[in-house]
Amino acid sequence: MPLSSNRSAIDSFIAMDVLAEANRRKKAGRPVISLAVGQPSHPAPDAALVAARKALEHGHLGYTDAFGLQSLREAIAEDYRARMGVVIDPARIAVTTGSSAGFNLAFLALFDAGDVVAIARPGYPAYRNILRALDLKVIEVEANAAHEFTLTPEALEEAERVHGVRLKGVLLASPANPTGTVTGRAALKRLADWCAARDTEFISDEIYHGLVFSGEEATALSFTDEAVVINSFSKYYCMTGWRIGWIVLPEKLVRVFEQLAQNIYICAPELSQIAAEAALGARTQLDGYRDIYRANRDYLNDALPKIGLPVVSPMDGAFYAYVDVSSHSNDSVAFSKKMLSEIDIAATPGKDFDPLTGGRYLRLSYAGTEAEIREAVERIGNWLP
Amino acid sequence: MPLSSNRSAIDSFIAMDVLAEANRRKKAGRPVISLAVGQPSHPAPDAALVAARKALEHGHLGYTDAFGLQSLREAIAEDYRARMGVVIDPARIAVTTGSSAGFNLAFLALFDAGDVVAIARPGYPAYRNILRALDLKVIEVEANAAHEFTLTPEALEEAERVHGVRLKGVLLASPANPTGTVTGRAALKRLADWCAARDTEFISDEIYHGLVFSGEEATALSFTDEAVVINSFSKYYCMTGWRIGWIVLPEKLVRVFEQLAQNIYICAPELSQIAAEAALGARTQLDGYRDIYRANRDYLNDALPKIGLPVVSPMDGAFYAYVDVSSHSNDSVAFSKKMLSEIDIAATPGKDFDPLTGGRYLRLSYAGTEAEIREAVERIGNWLP
Repeated sequence: MPLSSNRSAIDSFIAMDVLAEANRRKKAGRPVISLAVGQPSHPAPDAALVAARKALEHGHLGYTDAFGLQSLREAIAEDYRARMGVVIDPARIAVTTGSSAGFNLAFLALFDAGDVVAIARPGYPAYRNILRALDLKVIEVEANAAHEFTLTPEALEEAERVHGVRLKGVLLASPANPTGTVTGRAALKRLADWCAARDTEFISDEIYHGLVFSGEEATALSFTDEAVVINSFSKYYCMTGWRIGWIVLPEKLVRVFEQLAQNIYICAPELSQIAAEAALGARTQLDGYRDIYRANRDYLNDALPKIGLPVVSPMDGAFYAYVDVSSHSNDSVAFSKKMLSEIDIAATPGKDFDPLTGGRYLRLSYAGTEAEIREAVERIGNWLP
Repeated sequence: MPLSSNRSAIDSFIAMDVLAEANRRKKAGRPVISLAVGQPSHPAPDAALVAARKALEHGHLGYTDAFGLQSLREAIAEDYRARMGVVIDPARIAVTTGSSAGFNLAFLALFDAGDVVAIARPGYPAYRNILRALDLKVIEVEANAAHEFTLTPEALEEAERVHGVRLKGVLLASPANPTGTVTGRAALKRLADWCAARDTEFISDEIYHGLVFSGEEATALSFTDEAVVINSFSKYYCMTGWRIGWIVLPEKLVRVFEQLAQNIYICAPELSQIAAEAALGARTQLDGYRDIYRANRDYLNDALPKIGLPVVSPMDGAFYAYVDVSSHSNDSVAFSKKMLSEIDIAATPGKDFDPLTGGRYLRLSYAGTEAEIREAVERIGNWLP
C-alpha cells in the first residue's frame, strides 16, 4: 500500500486550488472573473509571440545548456547594464523553468536539512511549502504595518531570540506578494549587509520588478555579488504559462547550481527561452500594460474601502490588493469559497499567505483588464451586506 | 561569503556537460555530431507544431491546473485504453514539466530523508543525483549480463543483505538507459509484486515506451494500481525541448503529489501541454521516426564491433548503444573529451551511468539521422587505432 512521506505533508497552494475550482466553473459556462492567481490578462508581448512562431517554422526545439541559451543569458546581462547600470557576467546568470525552479534550486544549493530560513508573513506560500518539503525549518517573521510590511535586521534578531535559532538564510521579496510592499534601496542594502556580516544567505526575490507604482525599485545586484537573486518573465513580461525565469548567482555558487539544474530540470523549455529573449525588447508594450495595472490600482485603492474591503498595505508594487475581510468573516477560506460559488469571483484567501492571521484577509489580483476589475468590484459590492 | 549546502555536493550530469561543450564547438563552426544526449533529431510531430502555432495566434497562455489541462489528462487516459487496454481515471494522471519533474515529485512524495532507494547500475544518472540532493540513500544494484541487465527480487534482497538496509523504494526503467534493456511483463510484474508484498514503493520509468525493437513492452499499469508510473513526451514523441511528461499515481497519493506540484512547479508550460495533446494522435509519423532508429540500431549493431566498439547489451529499446571502450581506454571521461576535441563526435562517458565500472564504457545515442550515424561511425572508425 503506497504511503506518502512525512515531508510531503505540506499545505496546498490554496491559490492553485481556487484556480482549479474557477477553471471547473468556467468550463461549466459560469461567468467567472478570476482575481485569484497572479496572472496578467495580456498575452506575452508581440515580439515574443513573433519569435516563438518563427521558431515553430522549423520546430527544432531541444535540450539547451542547463543554464539556458547563451544569447538569452547575454541579453539578460545587457538588460541589467542598460536599465540599471549593473554589470553582471552572463556566466552568473541561469535561465530557469519559472522562478519556481529558482527557489527550489536555491533552497537545495544553500541549505541542508534542519537549517532555518526566515521569510515574511504574509508572504508567498510556496516559499514556506517548498522549504518544508526540503526538510528546512521556516521562521515566518511578521511583516506588518509596524515593520513597514518588510523584514528588518531588528525583526530578524528578535525572531532568532524568540525561537532560539540562528538563521541560515533570509528571503525577501520586493515588490512583495501579497502586500505589494516595495523595500527601497537603503533598507534592502541594510538587510543584505546584515546577512553578509553573519554568513546568513540572502535571497532576493525580484520577480515583480517592472511593476513599481510608488517607491524605489532596487535590485540587490546593485550593491552585492553575494546574494542569490531570483527573477521571472511571468509578471511584468506577461509570460506565466511559459514557465520561464532566471537567477543571478554569486560566482562561487555557479557550478553547484549548474549541477543541480542539470539533474533536476535538465533545462528550461527552449521555445520559452527564445520568446523570453524577444520579450526583453518589448518594454514599450509592457509599460503600457503596467499603466493599466496602475489605473486598476488607483481605482481599487478608492473603490475597495467603499464596498467594505479596506486595503491593508499601500499598493506600491506587484499587482495585488490585500484586503481586510474581518468585518464579514474570520475564515477567509470559507469566505472565498462562498464568493466564488455565489458571485463567480475568485480570490485567494489570506490563509495562503499567512497561516496565523490570514483568516482575516483576502488577496485580489488586479492584473486583469479594467472592465474585469470594475465588474468584480460591482459584483462584490452588491453581494456584501 | 556564500557557501553551498552539503547535500548539493552531487555529481554533474556529465551528458549535460558534454552537451554544453558540444554546443560551444558548434557555435565556433566545428562540424559536431552529437550522440551525447538522448534527443531525437526530428522535431515534434506536425500535428503538435500545428496545434502550438494555432495557440500562438491568440497567445493567451497561462497557469493551468497544477496537474495540467483536463483535456490532456483525458487524452492520455484514452491513449492507455485504446493502445494497451488499460483503464485509468484521468484524476490519477498528472502532467509534469518533463519526466524530470515526475522523478523529483515522486522522490519527495514517497520518501523521507535517510530512506533507501534502489536503482540499476548502469542507469540514468539524474536518479542518483536527485535522490542524493534530497537526502536519500541510493543503492546501485548491478544490472549486468548475469542479471539480464535488469533488477530482480533476488538481486535486491542480496543488496539489502550486503548493505544491511531495508529498501523503501525501487526504481526500474524499461526500456532502460543506457543499456536499452527491455524488461518483459512477467519480470516487471514479479518485481512489482515483490515490492507490494513488503511495502516497498515501486517507481516504473516508462519514458522510452514506444521505442521497443525486440522483446515485450509492458506498463506496470496493466497489473498494478500501486506503482508510480513516470512517462514523457520527450523521446518517442520527439519533444525534449518542450519539457513535458506525465505521471500516473496510486489514487491515495494524488492529493499529496498535487500539493507538491502546486508549490514546486505551479504547472507545466501550457503551450507544451497543448502540443503534447496533439502529439498523441501523431503515431503514424512517429512510428516512421522509430523505424529510422531501428535501422540505425541494426546498422550499429553490426558496425560498432567492427570498428572496435563491442556493444555491451542487446539494444532492445530506447535509442542507445552502450559500448565497451576498454581496449582503448579505462577512463571514459577522458576518452569522450578526446573524441570530441579530435573528431567532433560527442558521446557520453559510462561514468555518468555507472560510477564504479563506467570508465570502460561509452553511450552513443542513435536517435539521429541515418547520415549522422554513418558519418559518426566513419569518423570514429578512422580515428581509433
